[in-house]
Parts: sequence; C-alpha cells; structure tokens
Amino acid sequence: MFKKSFLKELAKKEKVSLPFLEKQLQSKKAVIPLNKQNQLSKPTVIGEGFKVKINTNIGTSSEKPKVSEEMKKLDTAIKYGSDAVMDLSIGKNPSILRKKIVEKSAIPLGTVPIYEAAVKAEKKEGTFEKMSFDCIWETLKKQAKEGVDFFTIHSGILKKSIKYLKNNKRTGGIVSRGGAILARWMFVNGEENPVYTNFDKILDLAKKYNISMSLGDALRPGAIADSTDNLQISELHVLGELVKKCWKKGVQVMVEGPGHIPINEIEMNIKLQKKICHGAPFYVLGPLPTDIAAGYDHITSAIGGTVAAYHGADFLCVVTPAEHLRHPDINDIRDGVVASKIAAHSVDLLRFKDEWDKDKKISGYRAQRKWQKTFPLTLDQNKAKDYHKEIKPSDDICTMCGKFCSLKIIDKCDLLK
Amino acid sequence: MFKKSFLKELAKKEKVSLPFLEKQLQSKKAVIPLNKQNQLSKPTVIGEGFKVKINTNIGTSSEKPKVSEEMKKLDTAIKYGSDAVMDLSIGKNPSILRKKIVEKSAIPLGTVPIYEAAVKAEKKEGTFEKMSFDCIWETLKKQAKEGVDFFTIHSGILKKSIKYLKNNKRTGGIVSRGGAILARWMFVNGEENPVYTNFDKILDLAKKYNISMSLGDALRPGAIADSTDNLQISELHVLGELVKKCWKKGVQVMVEGPGHIPINEIEMNIKLQKKICHGAPFYVLGPLPTDIAAGYDHITSAIGGTVAAYHGADFLCVVTPAEHLRHPDINDIRDGVVASKIAAHSVDLLRFKDEWDKDKKISGYRAQRKWQKTFPLTLDQNKAKDYHKEIKPSDDICTMCGKFCSLKIIDKCDLLK
Repeated sequence: MFKKSFLKELAKKEKVSLPFLEKQLQSKKAVIPLNKQNQLSKPTVIGEGFKVKINTNIGTSSEKPKVSEEMKKLDTAIKYGSDAVMDLSIGKNPSILRKKIVEKSAIPLGTVPIYEAAVKAEKKEGTFEKMSFDCIWETLKKQAKEGVDFFTIHSGILKKSIKYLKNNKRTGGIVSRGGAILARWMFVNGEENPVYTNFDKILDLAKKYNISMSLGDALRPGAIADSTDNLQISELHVLGELVKKCWKKGVQVMVEGPGHIPINEIEMNIKLQKKICHGAPFYVLGPLPTDIAAGYDHITSAIGGTVAAYHGADFLCVVTPAEHLRHPDINDIRDGVVASKIAAHSVDLLRFKDEWDKDKKISGYRAQRKWQKTFPLTLDQNKAKDYHKEIKPSDDICTMCGKFCSLKIIDKCDLLK
Repeated sequence: MFKKSFLKELAKKEKVSLPFLEKQLQSKKAVIPLNKQNQLSKPTVIGEGFKVKINTNIGTSSEKPKVSEEMKKLDTAIKYGSDAVMDLSIGKNPSILRKKIVEKSAIPLGTVPIYEAAVKAEKKEGTFEKMSFDCIWETLKKQAKEGVDFFTIHSGILKKSIKYLKNNKRTGGIVSRGGAILARWMFVNGEENPVYTNFDKILDLAKKYNISMSLGDALRPGAIADSTDNLQISELHVLGELVKKCWKKGVQVMVEGPGHIPINEIEMNIKLQKKICHGAPFYVLGPLPTDIAAGYDHITSAIGGTVAAYHGADFLCVVTPAEHLRHPDINDIRDGVVASKIAAHSVDLLRFKDEWDKDKKISGYRAQRKWQKTFPLTLDQNKAKDYHKEIKPSDDICTMCGKFCSLKIIDKCDLLK
C-alpha cells in the first residue's frame, strides 16, 4: 500500500524501526491516513506503539463563513503541532475550504462527508431530511477524488438506536452533528441509516483512493450523566463489526470515541474499545471529565486526553476553550492545540527517549536560569517570552521570587548535574 | 479543639455527617486549618473523605511589591473558589499583606515563615545566610499571634541531604524557595536545619494557637528527570517521623508533595506518601507531568492534580500560567484557580451527589439550548457569557454549528430526559 522509502522515512521520524511500523500496519493496529493521490510533507501514523497524535477541527458554519479565517487556523494548528486537520465545514459552500486545504496542507485532512451532503440537500430539497443516498454517494466520490485522507462515517447509529433512545432518554441527547443529522433522517423517513446499509459500497471507494475510515461515534455521551451507557456501548459493538468489514476489504480504519466521561471510567472505556474493536486505533473526542467548565474545556479535555492516551488512546481531538459556546477563533485554536500537545507529550515522554529528553533539556537550562535557552523548547515560545518580558534578557532571576530565586540561592552550592 | 456547633456547620457544608467529620479529625486523616483566634466565614476541612480543596499562592516579591495588587488576587482566588490562600510574600515588608489578609479573608491563611525571617536577616545582617534561629523563632511567634492558620515548615531537609545531593546531582536542583534558603544556610554554616532541631518548640507554639502544620517538601523534584528520586523519598521518610511528632503534641498536620512527576508515577507517589506519612492529608504542588509547557502550566497542573486527587491527594496548590516565568497577575490567578477547580471537581463529582448534580443540571439546560441558564452553572460565567455574546440571548443555536446544531436537529425527536 505504501512505498518502502516512504515507510522508512516515517519510521525514522517516529523513532521506531521500519519492521515495527510494518508489523503494526500489517496487524491493523496503526493507520496512515493518506489519500493515494496525495503527497504530504508531514504524513503521520496513528496507533499502538507510536507517538500520540492530535487532530484539529476547523471549518465554516452558517454563522461563520469566512474561508480565509479557517485557513489561518490551519496554519495555527500546524504551527503548534497538530498532526492532522479535519474540515468540518457546514457553511454555505463547504467544498471551497476543503480544496484549499488539500492544496496547501502539510498534514492529513479528514472530513465528515455527511455534512456537505446535508448542506446540498438543504439547498436542493429545502431540508436535509430529504437527503438521498445518491446525494451522499456523490459527495463521497467528489471528496475522495478531491483528496480527502480520512472520512468520518457515522455507520454505527441504527434505526433501533433511536427507538432505544426514545425509551431510555438521555440528559445530553445526541451531541454528534453527523449523528444528529442521521438520527433525524431515520426518525423522519423511518428507514435504516444509509451509510450503514451502503457501508460496503463506501468501503470500495475508500479502498480505491486509500482513504482511511474513521468510524464516528454518533451516540457518544455529551454529558457525564450519560457516560458509558447502553446506547454508547451498543454503538461500539456495531463499530467493532464494521472494523472487521473494513479489514476484509483492505481498508485502513480507526474508531472514534467519547465524549463526556468521568475520570474513573476513562481507562475502562479505552480498554473496552480496544477489545470490542479488535485493537483498531482509537480516536477520542476529549474525553471531558466534567460538564461545568465551558470556556475552559481545553483544560478539561487535556485532563481526559492524558488519562485516555496513557491507557491506550492513539489520537486526540483538540477541544478549544470555545467548545459548547461558539465557533473558535485563532487564539482558541492555539490554546486548544497546545493543551492537546501537553496531553500527548505527557504520555509520549514515558515511551520515547527523544520526548523525555525535551523535558530534561529545558529543565537543565531552567535550573541554570538560562531563560532565553528555555523558550524555544516550550510548546509556545511566544507566550513564554511574552510572560518573561518584564525581566531583561541578561537577568538571571524572574519577577516571581526576585532575589530569593531558589535556583540562584543554591547556585553556589554545586548541586546541579 | 473545635466547638460542636462549628463542626456541625462544617459537616453540613461538606455534605458529610458530623460523626464522620469527628472520626476523620480524631484519626488525623483530616485537618481544619484555623488559628484559635480566628473566625472565618469560609473555614475548610482538608483530608480523606472530604471534597478536594485548593489553595492559591499570593504575595509580594522584591520585583512586585504592591500590596493592593495582592489583595485583588485574594478576592479573585475566593471568587473562583479557592478554599485557602498562602501569603508567600518575600518582598520588603512581608507582614503588611499578611495583616490585611487576616483582617479580610474569608478563607484560611497559610505562610512560609522562613521567608519573613530571611527577609529580616537580609535587612539586619546583609544576608539570610546569617539568619539565627532566634530570628526564625521571633517570626514564628509574631505570625502565630497575628493569626496565621497554617505554617509551611521545611523540617525534612537535613544537613545530610545536601551532602547526598552533592554526590547525586539533580537536573533541577532544589526548586523549593524555603528549601533552597535552608539548604544554602546549612551549606554555609555547616549546621543542622534549625527548623528540624527546634521542631518540638515550634510544635508547642502551633499547639498554643491551634496552627496546622504543613510539612514542606523542600526536596520535591523540579524536573521530570528528578521525579521520585532517593532525595525526595528520603525527605518523605523524615516527614513521616515528623507527622508522628505533631500528633503526639496534639498538633494538626498535613504533608506537602511534588512537584514535577510523570503521569505514570503519580498514583504511586500519592500511595507512598499516605503510607509513609500514616494517612496524614496530602497537599500537592501540581504535580506537573511535563516540564515543557511554560505559559500553560495551569493545564499541566490540572492534569496532574486530577490524577493525584483521584488517587487520594486532598489539597491541590493552584499553579498559574505564569509558573516558571513571572509573578502572576490577576488573570493568571483566575486561570490557575479555575484549572485547579476543574481538577478538584472532576474527582468530587464521583464522590458527592451535589457535585454530580452540578454536571447533570448544566447538561440538561445545554441539551435544551437554554444557554442563559447554563452560564451561572459554569466555573467562570463571565468567560462563558463573553464567548457566547455574538449570539442574541434569545437564539437557541451558537456560531459553532449554526442551523446544523445537533441539539436543535434532534429537538423534535423527543429523546431527552
């Protein structure tokens, strides 16, 4: 599927051996999202035994249609270390941004094609409720051809899920946009989920372009009170079946996961997913261990993401401070990406010597109060420099402790490595 | 030690029974830091079986001497939910702020008296290296009389620690300010730690005023590379002995802990402390699972703090975005307190129904898109409101998804509790 030279380069970047990378791809424990038409300057591998990866969501909405703004967010995401980007545009003309990203982006691009299909159906039929599978299919083909690297497809939500949900109501309902679109569609039309019934056809397309499937968790809990409920787990079982279908067709696949999950259920959720989905890579949206931190959910997500990654989650979706409140701006994207990088790195440093060395290096300079040398080693050197600016670059203290700097006090004691 | 009516009130606030509170105090698994001369409008109990508490550090430095600014930080800390405050002033006149805090604060006040002693010695002798125990003792007596509720005393760092450290150098050295002052003092004077040799005397004073002891971790790791090293653990053993001394004298005591600790060592550190310190409450300074996030260490600390609290840490010290970079400003204090509250609440919601209900309530309103009702339930309603302001209060969507709001889409499907 991939050229040896390409894999060799990627293995080198990942600090693993080529045979290990090949083994993980072979056993489907890792995926490389890369449309066969694309050449990315920063391709990535997601899965067990590799560094934890992060994805940033961008995209227009009906209220925020500016494509140029979203392109700036792409730059910001890449600058702060995002490994992938998803274009979740659901504004008037979702394909414009996508084309620009494919043209420019160094990192893999994912989409949720049902969004564009819904927008088209709204335009044509007045409501997405009248969306046909043809409309979805045309969208999938177009996006595949245009170079999308991975598709989020919500094939795990079924007609019976809606019925079950009606009899077992939730606090948070359905918080997946794709999931809600399909739920409403099934509710109105009384038919089965079209991306479930046509899953094989979609896989043939994915195979043709080497598009990785990312099985969406339409029924992820959107409230702590709904965490790890029957609905979530029953969808996970469907996704486990679909993973096998992907593999049978030779299509790379990862699985999306929650959501709002209390801290004591995160480890279990990761292990459950890995078990039920046969070791397929796990892509988590959070998880958020509390619902009450709107405005600070990048922090909530970094907490859940660290615990999730430590227990085996492979891919973290960036949550920004704007989550639950508004369309994120560029600063929100920066804050969200940095928070996710903290989560990913906190786990990577346990597993990769080059990551561990980053901490050792910065701490060495810090202990010697060589502040200027520490800044380029932080996740956001602009912020670090800005915070330190009241002190002259030549000074060896900061405003916190002034002359009672602990590091300066013991400097003459010769206690440092 | 405490009046029944006072304990009854506190138990009610904590959502525990009076007998449980009494039992935990009796078995020393909890402390109520409260100088016998004080009456606080928001007293607190710290320890096993109670809600996780957070402390905010404020205080002047030689570079940032404004007392009025620190008083604003006190208001900010209390507004966002800090349970205690430490005045770590090490500026010219550290007692001015302390007196103001005692006068005004609703929450318990802690100090590190060695700071004021060091400042005095610098003034009198030209260097803190000439500080006498008399100077420390006078400071302790003054602060006790003036109404400090808990003292951080670094009695666990010994002469032999310095010798050991010289032969087993660290990447980060000594990052505790109090620890560094005492280390340097011992290094220069060749004598044993005066707050160790005079520990009994200090306890008599603490007993007299019912001041709680907070045994400082002078040798906490300040770099991931130094985590859980011999130095840290040997100090912990000394602290475990000192805990017994406190109990023998009838003095309430808690123990301070790290610091920079990788995510895989946090659980073990908490369990080790609880074991070695005989179940005394544990007050952690972080822990920070990475060193590379300067400017965002409130996030790093929220990650480590959540994991620590989940495994038994009782008291979290707020780390602000300014950590490692500068004296924090008021916004840093707010961001730090909110991050710590996220950590504390993420654990409390598992253990206390009233905390769990907070999440359930906000998620219920959120699912119904009653945004205005969600804001007062968030940790920082000003930020939440500000983020949402582009949308009219009457609107039932936000700028993120616009008309494709998942919650709105399924609204007519009757799926919510």
